[in-house]
Amino acid sequence: MPPIPTVDLNCDMGESFGAWHLGHDAAIMPFITSANIACGFHAGDPAVMKRTVRLALRHSVAIGAHPGLPDLVGFGRRNMDISAEEAFEMTVYQLGALTAIVRAEGGALHHLKPHGALYNMAATNAALAEALAEAVYKVQPELTLYGLAGSELTKAGEKLGLRTAHEVFADRTYQADGTLTPRRQPDALLTDAAAATAQVLRLVTEGRVRSQQGPDVALRADTVCLHGDGAHALEFAQQLNQALRAAGVQLAAGTTGRAQ
Amino acid sequence: MPPIPTVDLNCDMGESFGAWHLGHDAAIMPFITSANIACGFHAGDPAVMKRTVRLALRHSVAIGAHPGLPDLVGFGRRNMDISAEEAFEMTVYQLGALTAIVRAEGGALHHLKPHGALYNMAATNAALAEALAEAVYKVQPELTLYGLAGSELTKAGEKLGLRTAHEVFADRTYQADGTLTPRRQPDALLTDAAAATAQVLRLVTEGRVRSQQGPDVALRADTVCLHGDGAHALEFAQQLNQALRAAGVQLAAGTTGRAQ
Amino acid sequence: MPPIPTVDLNCDMGESFGAWHLGHDAAIMPFITSANIACGFHAGDPAVMKRTVRLALRHSVAIGAHPGLPDLVGFGRRNMDISAEEAFEMTVYQLGALTAIVRAEGGALHHLKPHGALYNMAATNAALAEALAEAVYKVQPELTLYGLAGSELTKAGEKLGLRTAHEVFADRTYQADGTLTPRRQPDALLTDAAAATAQVLRLVTEGRVRSQQGPDVALRADTVCLHGDGAHALEFAQQLNQALRAAGVQLAAGTTGRAQ
Amino acid sequence: MPPIPTVDLNCDMGESFGAWHLGHDAAIMPFITSANIACGFHAGDPAVMKRTVRLALRHSVAIGAHPGLPDLVGFGRRNMDISAEEAFEMTVYQLGALTAIVRAEGGALHHLKPHGALYNMAATNAALAEALAEAVYKVQPELTLYGLAGSELTKAGEKLGLRTAHEVFADRTYQADGTLTPRRQPDALLTDAAAATAQVLRLVTEGRVRSQQGPDVALRADTVCLHGDGAHALEFAQQLNQALRAAGVQLAAGTTGRAQ
Repeated sequence: MPPIPTVDLNCDMGESFGAWHLGHDAAIMPFITSANIACGFHAGDPAVMKRTVRLALRHSVAIGAHPGLPDLVGFGRRNMDISAEEAFEMTVYQLGALTAIVRAEGGALHHLKPHGALYNMAATNAALAEALAEAVYKVQPELTLYGLAGSELTKAGEKLGLRTAHEVFADRTYQADGTLTPRRQPDALLTDAAAATAQVLRLVTEGRVRSQQGPDVALRADTVCLHGDGAHALEFAQQLNQALRAAGVQLAAGTTGRAQ
Repeated sequence: MPPIPTVDLNCDMGESFGAWHLGHDAAIMPFITSANIACGFHAGDPAVMKRTVRLALRHSVAIGAHPGLPDLVGFGRRNMDISAEEAFEMTVYQLGALTAIVRAEGGALHHLKPHGALYNMAATNAALAEALAEAVYKVQPELTLYGLAGSELTKAGEKLGLRTAHEVFADRTYQADGTLTPRRQPDALLTDAAAATAQVLRLVTEGRVRSQQGPDVALRADTVCLHGDGAHALEFAQQLNQALRAAGVQLAAGTTGRAQ
Repeated sequence: MPPIPTVDLNCDMGESFGAWHLGHDAAIMPFITSANIACGFHAGDPAVMKRTVRLALRHSVAIGAHPGLPDLVGFGRRNMDISAEEAFEMTVYQLGALTAIVRAEGGALHHLKPHGALYNMAATNAALAEALAEAVYKVQPELTLYGLAGSELTKAGEKLGLRTAHEVFADRTYQADGTLTPRRQPDALLTDAAAATAQVLRLVTEGRVRSQQGPDVALRADTVCLHGDGAHALEFAQQLNQALRAAGVQLAAGTTGRAQ
Repeated sequence: MPPIPTVDLNCDMGESFGAWHLGHDAAIMPFITSANIACGFHAGDPAVMKRTVRLALRHSVAIGAHPGLPDLVGFGRRNMDISAEEAFEMTVYQLGALTAIVRAEGGALHHLKPHGALYNMAATNAALAEALAEAVYKVQPELTLYGLAGSELTKAGEKLGLRTAHEVFADRTYQADGTLTPRRQPDALLTDAAAATAQVLRLVTEGRVRSQQGPDVALRADTVCLHGDGAHALEFAQQLNQALRAAGVQLAAGTTGRAQ
């Protein structure tokens, strides 16, 4: 472990579409170190993408592609029976679209994190995970692949030699096997901000989280997922940012504490 | 003028979508030197794009992005009152999407040619033309911008220092001012294949075309547009390809007779 | 003319889409007498439509179909070169979709008012206007067709014997020929709420409005368009509702002061 | 059982979209008795729907709504995790859209049959099946609900008192429990046209089919699904039509052999 623990704070951004606005991108941007920008399939459109890229560049926040399922009305949150090949193709397409927008604004892409149902399916479905990792590998192998800590997705990225960022959640509880407590269970969420902050701090400094079953579980925590909407999103982003820095944690994308 | 006249034969490709097939891509590919591949807005989807890119690479045909208006049901053929900024954004987006697919297949993009209504609007609307040229310039300034010979689009590209390809049509007649005879006029089309071939030959070797009003008009002819559908598309592509080579014309994309 | 002047207050509703919310439907519904509900092409989705229909039924507000151009990202506000036949077809489709949703909720449709660019184009383009009127006529001739007062659309409806509602605007100024002052002109908008209220009152009780050129112009005012978004939308809806009732004007959809 | 055995021959129709054509609607229409017309979500657009409705009316073929998942690029064939409420809403929407188009052409709707993945999911998922049946019941309870013979969908329709049509397949084999042999199994398809015809004849006249396990299984066969694309679609439609009539079977929609 390096002398200074480091972690990335990431947040989904650019989730507006056409006349519709969503999220508090401008308010939250100052408190994060990387932004996952929607690429037009589940949210975002070329104008929103450009606007959000500009905002991220202004704040020196690392920019990531956030590809989703082709399900605009469902916000990419509904599982779809796509093939691994389709997953590869839609990821390449969306990755390329955002890359061009970033380049037109004079920036460079830093990472890719799949959205919603695509993220969840790729966490447990090895074939989809490999397809997503391959999409990154074949188009921009210098990118970091963000995925659920210990998931099939990070595993697939590592198999290809990609830099990966293992993602942990501030507001979700964990099971003894290191997986997230399913949302349908009553104890899935940490609603207390102080407890959420403490969980992140321990994950970042010790690489451990207390499971719902009692025992600690080891988890690599390169990046923490913040939520951009909800009543307390901004407040929590500020609080976590301050608590981590107060504890001597360095906030940065890309140079994670346990990077390869 | 170089000793060997050269021209590019381009054709719109990859215009299938999902379960729907359109065009005769595989049959026509051997007879052209550059392919304009639809990018998902008016036609094409990530799977179709990948398939078409592979086909073009197999035939060593130069690959171009063929961005269109966001009008799938209208095939990008209906004019829309988009702003120049929107034109820029949708072009960057589609250009990037195809670029990534080409890169994933180990190739490189060669040009960009707007589709349908976007092509037509950019031929006469300077603001849209400049937006499209700027999109290419800011993302991949090494690309060639294809546009109607003598149009606002080629003009805008040249103003930015882009390599441009002036496009002529085999099967359309011309007016004394160098514009195409509008389609609604009865004499808009050259239906005789021999006459169409002769028109192209003269455009390529002499840079002139006889106008409907009688006098010749000078026109730069870097690339000839072939149509990929229709009953006689394949036959005409073969015939024109052979006639040009028989006349000593070199068929190639990118090294046009009057390139900068 | 009945002893009691009557007018309808209509407002565009159901303009959310998927995860995106727009407008203040629940707050404004109590102050209007008819709701134009988006039908999925420019805004709205089946879930939003159902929710909005339920809300309107709860408030006994007359329900209208609000079909738009197939331009979700542009919110149906960008003119498109659609044919009259396409206008007919897309209107029938959207009208039917909303009709079924209303019927599933135990209600009945009252009117149709085209949205955005479709409304504007049908106000001046007779062929489009006739196509829209014919769509209503062939599917549900008992509906009232809402259109700009004195426009091609109301004219087309009347030619077919449809009940029409001539629409006036509270916050727009008028020209001496009865048309709206184009938005690009600095004097297009009435920003003073009191002046807007006075304009509506006079239109409803006298059928006249003072034009920007000075002289009064006669205008049939069956329905007043309120805007559902904007900072002061709710406030103005309340104020206009109260002012009209205080002046003895009856607020009701369908039994307009000058109905056929 | 009536003295004359009767069956309906149905086929999916109107599966073109915009510039893309699919199927052989005009050729097959003379040989079927009911057409399931795509409603715009997985295929079809308002123009295609109108054209197909006209074609069906010209041939006195019963018209059914064929709603699908909102997955145009996947042709509605990929399962999606939609809720029962979403299934209800999208079915009502699409049902209404087609109803209006049929009404504008002077016809009346006869039935509803879900498409692709929606059909398959509703065959086994009771909640989705009930949602679809409820959509029909609340909008047009006079319609016949088509579903896989013995499925959750027909069961849900019957629970609501809807008229149902149990659908059998000419070219699929059956298991001893009456379900279709899954497509991934090598013996899923009957590729021999004579065997397929014989299977249908026996289903219609005896209500029995030989299962892959050997024993016969009883199956209600109100309607037979024909496929509209594929090399031999037309040929097989003709052949089956003739064989059934030669065997004294009456071909008709709506007055099925075991109708309620």
